[in-house]
Amino acid sequence: MIVTFLGTGSGVPTLQRNVSAIALWFIQRGKWWLFDCGEGTQQQIMRSWLKLSQLEKIFITHLHGDHVYGLIGLLASRSLRSNVEAPITVYGPPGLDRYTAAILETTRVHLRYPLSVEIVSPGRYEMEEGYIVECAAAAHRGQAYAYAVEEPERPGAFRDDLARQAGIPPGPLYGKLKRGDTIQLEDGRVFHGESFVGPPQRGRKVVYSGDTSPCQAVVQLAEGADLFIHEATYAHADLALAERSAHSTARQAAGIARQAGVRTLVLTHFSSRYEKAGAEAGMAQLLKEAREVFPDTLLAADFLSLKVRRKRIETVGQSLDLTGDEAGKV
Amino acid sequence: MIVTFLGTGSGVPTLQRNVSAIALWFIQRGKWWLFDCGEGTQQQIMRSWLKLSQLEKIFITHLHGDHVYGLIGLLASRSLRSNVEAPITVYGPPGLDRYTAAILETTRVHLRYPLSVEIVSPGRYEMEEGYIVECAAAAHRGQAYAYAVEEPERPGAFRDDLARQAGIPPGPLYGKLKRGDTIQLEDGRVFHGESFVGPPQRGRKVVYSGDTSPCQAVVQLAEGADLFIHEATYAHADLALAERSAHSTARQAAGIARQAGVRTLVLTHFSSRYEKAGAEAGMAQLLKEAREVFPDTLLAADFLSLKVRRKRIETVGQSLDLTGDEAGKV
Repeated sequence: MIVTFLGTGSGVPTLQRNVSAIALWFIQRGKWWLFDCGEGTQQQIMRSWLKLSQLEKIFITHLHGDHVYGLIGLLASRSLRSNVEAPITVYGPPGLDRYTAAILETTRVHLRYPLSVEIVSPGRYEMEEGYIVECAAAAHRGQAYAYAVEEPERPGAFRDDLARQAGIPPGPLYGKLKRGDTIQLEDGRVFHGESFVGPPQRGRKVVYSGDTSPCQAVVQLAEGADLFIHEATYAHADLALAERSAHSTARQAAGIARQAGVRTLVLTHFSSRYEKAGAEAGMAQLLKEAREVFPDTLLAADFLSLKVRRKRIETVGQSLDLTGDEAGKV
Repeated sequence: MIVTFLGTGSGVPTLQRNVSAIALWFIQRGKWWLFDCGEGTQQQIMRSWLKLSQLEKIFITHLHGDHVYGLIGLLASRSLRSNVEAPITVYGPPGLDRYTAAILETTRVHLRYPLSVEIVSPGRYEMEEGYIVECAAAAHRGQAYAYAVEEPERPGAFRDDLARQAGIPPGPLYGKLKRGDTIQLEDGRVFHGESFVGPPQRGRKVVYSGDTSPCQAVVQLAEGADLFIHEATYAHADLALAERSAHSTARQAAGIARQAGVRTLVLTHFSSRYEKAGAEAGMAQLLKEAREVFPDTLLAADFLSLKVRRKRIETVGQSLDLTGDEAGKV
């Protein structure tokens, strides 16, 4: 799984950061999902390695403009730009159906592919190929969701070292054992495939908070996540602003990550004030505040791509030092 | 008046051209109007010299996504980004009111400034400070408009050469004459301001076709325009495509300009096919086809700015040769 940030600012786009959108690419399936779709997301996709034709699902956290104003343009362009007929499902909170229907109708959009809009409520949803999406209620103005994506457990790897030890000749027999078949050698010995398979591999878990003030529902949702993306609109000095607008500070986001016992935290949805010339606190301050609470923290940037491995997070196509102080500062 | 193109592609954005949006800046008033507002227009504005706080009016030609999906995001950002309280009026065809109301309601937008949405029909409208906006019905799928902006006639310039010839001493008396007052010199002679003012200057006229197939209503609307912006989605080789989709070829647009007797034609809203690698016809072909019919033709490009003078069109902030073959090819 690869996560690509397409927009990492809050409220209004800036020259450095577009508004919210995060892609989750399932490498082996050749498909990807989009989380939130602020205005200009389709333009960000054009500048990335993602293809609209391979987009399968869209999850909207809440109906604020900086998370949803790019949705219909993206759906329309997917229809106009390619001949893809693969359907798209959009999931989100109540109101999303009225929002999409009103725009599709008043602007007379005729999509070449089937579109479903599904209003979800907190709970666990089974998706294709064993994937689970869990939706939790975040704590923001209006109805807002956080989403977790859990990969299914995978069968263990074939232990050819054990097969060789047992004196089974390498070749087609190994393929049968891999598939779990039972085989018999010429000398009469019988072997069962399950004896040569390692323990099953746990599925990876990626969690995205959407916009939220610190809340226990997100802690529960994020438990044990490999990659946890939490908003950090403000620095600690602006805690009052964060509380008033139902957002989080970087330090608060780190506290949620620590409580949830996640592996890596990535902060996003930054207020533009920290990148203005002469700002008292800059982005380095947000990173510092978060790392004091949760050391394995990165700052998201537009077009940052992270490969989610079972033991670590790797950047893709960039030469970032993920362990040093400069981590994530792009 | 300065015209700045913010999006010059059709249907879907490309890396070269965003979707439709054109700014018209009234230099002396310090205000500007926007014509169409495709997705990502607010991002294009950030990359230009335009300020959202000085935006006064928005005119929508028709309710296709590539002309309107950036509207609400732009209005919301104007409210979030600046403390401006100056109102905005959005003009457009029927359905625009339902479109804006549905999005503002479902995404809970609270603007800090007053917003009016006015549904217009073909006719002449008086605006602030004597400006006239004329709306004509274009020939496109669904209800579509073309707009003309006519500047009021301006008083003639003060002829200080005549005042000096009459022996009137330069100084405060010139100011009185400029204002049209009557003055008396110490020697008893009496002069009237109107004697020292040149003939009134005609107002300039800028016309934008929106999306349309060639039509007489646009010819009439454009009569005598200083700057005429007409869509040219296709090259002549794709005439059948243009007819099927109710768009124009570059040659057809030039024919309209010739019939209307405009001063300068600028083509926009180009299909992305002419900028793809290996395309049979490129942008140079569109320009050639148009100039065979109407020589004073330019191709629009994102961020091209044109100053509309009474005798000629000048580029602003760019070193384009407006008379040579390279004109407008940026």
